[in-house]
Amino acid sequence: MAAARVCGLRCMSTAVKSKDRFVLPLAEDALPRGFSLTGLHCGVKKKADVLDLAVLSSTTQRTAAAGVFTTNAFRAAPVFVSEQVLRSSKGRANSLVVNSGCANAVTGERGMNDAWAMARATASESLVMSTGVIGQHLPIEKVVAGIRAAPASLGSDSAAWMRAARAFMTTDTFPKVRARSFNLPGWGTARIAGITKGAGMIHPEMVATPHATLLGVIATDAPVSPDALRSALSFATDRSFNAISVDGDTSTNDALIAFANGAAASADAQEITETDTEAFAALRNELTGFAAELAQLVVRDGEGATKFVTVDVRGARSFADAQAVARTVSTSALVKTALFGEDANWGRVLAAVGRTPLSEPVNPNRVSVSFIPTDGSAELKLLVNGEPEALDEARAKTILEEEDLEVRIDLGMGKESTKYWTCDFSHEYVTINGSYRS
Amino acid sequence: MAAARVCGLRCMSTAVKSKDRFVLPLAEDALPRGFSLTGLHCGVKKKADVLDLAVLSSTTQRTAAAGVFTTNAFRAAPVFVSEQVLRSSKGRANSLVVNSGCANAVTGERGMNDAWAMARATASESLVMSTGVIGQHLPIEKVVAGIRAAPASLGSDSAAWMRAARAFMTTDTFPKVRARSFNLPGWGTARIAGITKGAGMIHPEMVATPHATLLGVIATDAPVSPDALRSALSFATDRSFNAISVDGDTSTNDALIAFANGAAASADAQEITETDTEAFAALRNELTGFAAELAQLVVRDGEGATKFVTVDVRGARSFADAQAVARTVSTSALVKTALFGEDANWGRVLAAVGRTPLSEPVNPNRVSVSFIPTDGSAELKLLVNGEPEALDEARAKTILEEEDLEVRIDLGMGKESTKYWTCDFSHEYVTINGSYRS
Repeated sequence: MAAARVCGLRCMSTAVKSKDRFVLPLAEDALPRGFSLTGLHCGVKKKADVLDLAVLSSTTQRTAAAGVFTTNAFRAAPVFVSEQVLRSSKGRANSLVVNSGCANAVTGERGMNDAWAMARATASESLVMSTGVIGQHLPIEKVVAGIRAAPASLGSDSAAWMRAARAFMTTDTFPKVRARSFNLPGWGTARIAGITKGAGMIHPEMVATPHATLLGVIATDAPVSPDALRSALSFATDRSFNAISVDGDTSTNDALIAFANGAAASADAQEITETDTEAFAALRNELTGFAAELAQLVVRDGEGATKFVTVDVRGARSFADAQAVARTVSTSALVKTALFGEDANWGRVLAAVGRTPLSEPVNPNRVSVSFIPTDGSAELKLLVNGEPEALDEARAKTILEEEDLEVRIDLGMGKESTKYWTCDFSHEYVTINGSYRS
Repeated sequence: MAAARVCGLRCMSTAVKSKDRFVLPLAEDALPRGFSLTGLHCGVKKKADVLDLAVLSSTTQRTAAAGVFTTNAFRAAPVFVSEQVLRSSKGRANSLVVNSGCANAVTGERGMNDAWAMARATASESLVMSTGVIGQHLPIEKVVAGIRAAPASLGSDSAAWMRAARAFMTTDTFPKVRARSFNLPGWGTARIAGITKGAGMIHPEMVATPHATLLGVIATDAPVSPDALRSALSFATDRSFNAISVDGDTSTNDALIAFANGAAASADAQEITETDTEAFAALRNELTGFAAELAQLVVRDGEGATKFVTVDVRGARSFADAQAVARTVSTSALVKTALFGEDANWGRVLAAVGRTPLSEPVNPNRVSVSFIPTDGSAELKLLVNGEPEALDEARAKTILEEEDLEVRIDLGMGKESTKYWTCDFSHEYVTINGSYRS
């Protein structure tokens, strides 16, 4: 019987499709000017050909920096150091050093010293990020030696961005880097590029104040004041990295940092501030869309993920209610395993909606649930105003066999809505996480 | 590489040990007097030899009944009916009918009619429970025919209890039934027996008011007033079924019902009330311990579970804080997959502690984490006051290879503590839940 059950699902060895198609070439003219970066192997990871150290620095005189960080009580040493550097520099840091393979979290005073050593080896005021196993010390001498060797390989082209992106990776199956150019009203063309990583321990906590995500860096050559950059980054995070979940676990090391070095403008041009309404709105909008693109890549590469699912919640009384429902559905183990099994078990979606604490209880007779196929065909209604539709199993099967799916939930309570992105829970997820340290 | 990862874990075909050793013989003299019950096949489930209908009834004139039910907004029709019967009878119902294979949840008006039809076919005022797939209608004629046939097979011996327990099962791998006799001060010997089921969608919501669990029934022949029974059941639930989690999902059908029919006393004996301090305390204590034993069986049979883990949280400022931490650790997908992989990845335990919202933030430098082996050997300290201990991997491996494990977390903030029971997240869990409806 166990064997029959196993055969009913897609076999483990074929469940994970290649993700290489998400590695897109970077247009050289979309890369922000005035940034140089590299990725190299310094020895945190055992295998000699695996990159584990990235350095990014801005070459302009004035560079604004802003960050959002984890709210986890066990925030790692590099998070403390980066926050301290942003504070003391008043948002004027121009370097970032990142290692993968060791999180430098729960490492006590020695961990703090190591994080400061990384920052100071990189620049007088560098930001720091680490990702990997918690509770182990960094081989700090190897890391510092790597940082000292980094300038020799710094570059500004797409190969340099790709190298740096590879050095961010842990259980990621592909490097996550994107670049775009965009028009900044009143300023002309600017460019934005970013790297992110993360495939597990992904569940940013949704609070209103600037806070948590995973590891990411976004660099633009637009001229932006530190305050305006911080404001735009916070707004963008709530609509991108704060709207994804892989496994419901919030990391000790989550951090997203943005740099704006103004290299797109002349050296004496004024920086964009929040009072500069049109340009600021354009920048914030661009940053939000770009951050969402990066965040979705993290879900695409969710540990063991075989599905990419958009949870679209409508008809909520408040944005917070919509987010709460989307988050509960997106993190339900039963919903996620049903998605893996391509099982149209919408009852699990409803059960998740029903256990979400809301500002006012949901009325079961007003809730509707549909699957929205990604091929543009009509929605498949599953529940309309609390009454189940006769399920067209064949059509449901066709829709669920696709990699992409949208689950639409209408609460019938109001006009607020939100989108959230999640993935399925597969055998491969268990395999990856059952032996992560090995 | 994927193959190597898979081989690093216990193979799927050997991961699930037989659970038959948790099926214990019931002592006939521990079974409560004055209850008769049965289990049979009525046709909700397809296979003719699988039981899917249970009936329990008390044969005494006065029987007290109390229930706690799910807080899920999409509470199923049988939950509404049972609550209504308890209300209108003022806690004097004496029958219960249970079907497995179909939850009769999200089934609209027809579902309500079906639940009432089940109740009325059983007795004038019967309680009702259903468990199985959400959003499908009951084959109500088959169910009613089964209820009509039930009296022919009613019995009061251990075989009857076992038959009824089998009829509760869905993805359960073994029937869950226990019985005990106990001393009731001032009253003499009484008996208590109970059945529970559940292997998935197990995560009762922790609120202070009487509420949710999974499917369970507890019957005692002690004489107890309806109010006292309700109070004792609520207390017991918070320390048993409300302290377990399999997958973090709260069901639409959760219900635990207790009957007390007084058959242990003479017909004119007074019922125990809350003012009857010593007897009430003894009853409540007995009920709590008994409910905890049943609840732990649910975790033992958690879908795909290969581990039974006690999360013991100490040093909390409040009981609510202790529960919140225990719940977060117990439901973390990363913690649960590490337990499956027998990986001493205590960093994930800490990350879960760190993301728990508490009445006051935890101080990382005061938190300690240990593994407590179940063989009685000394605890293995992993983190002491925020500093990692040098990990004895060999010893950790030996401890983690055992089926049972206790994870002890001391927050260093106060004197409150709690225990919570959880299981691991295995390949088998994904297999079971990827194809539940099939």
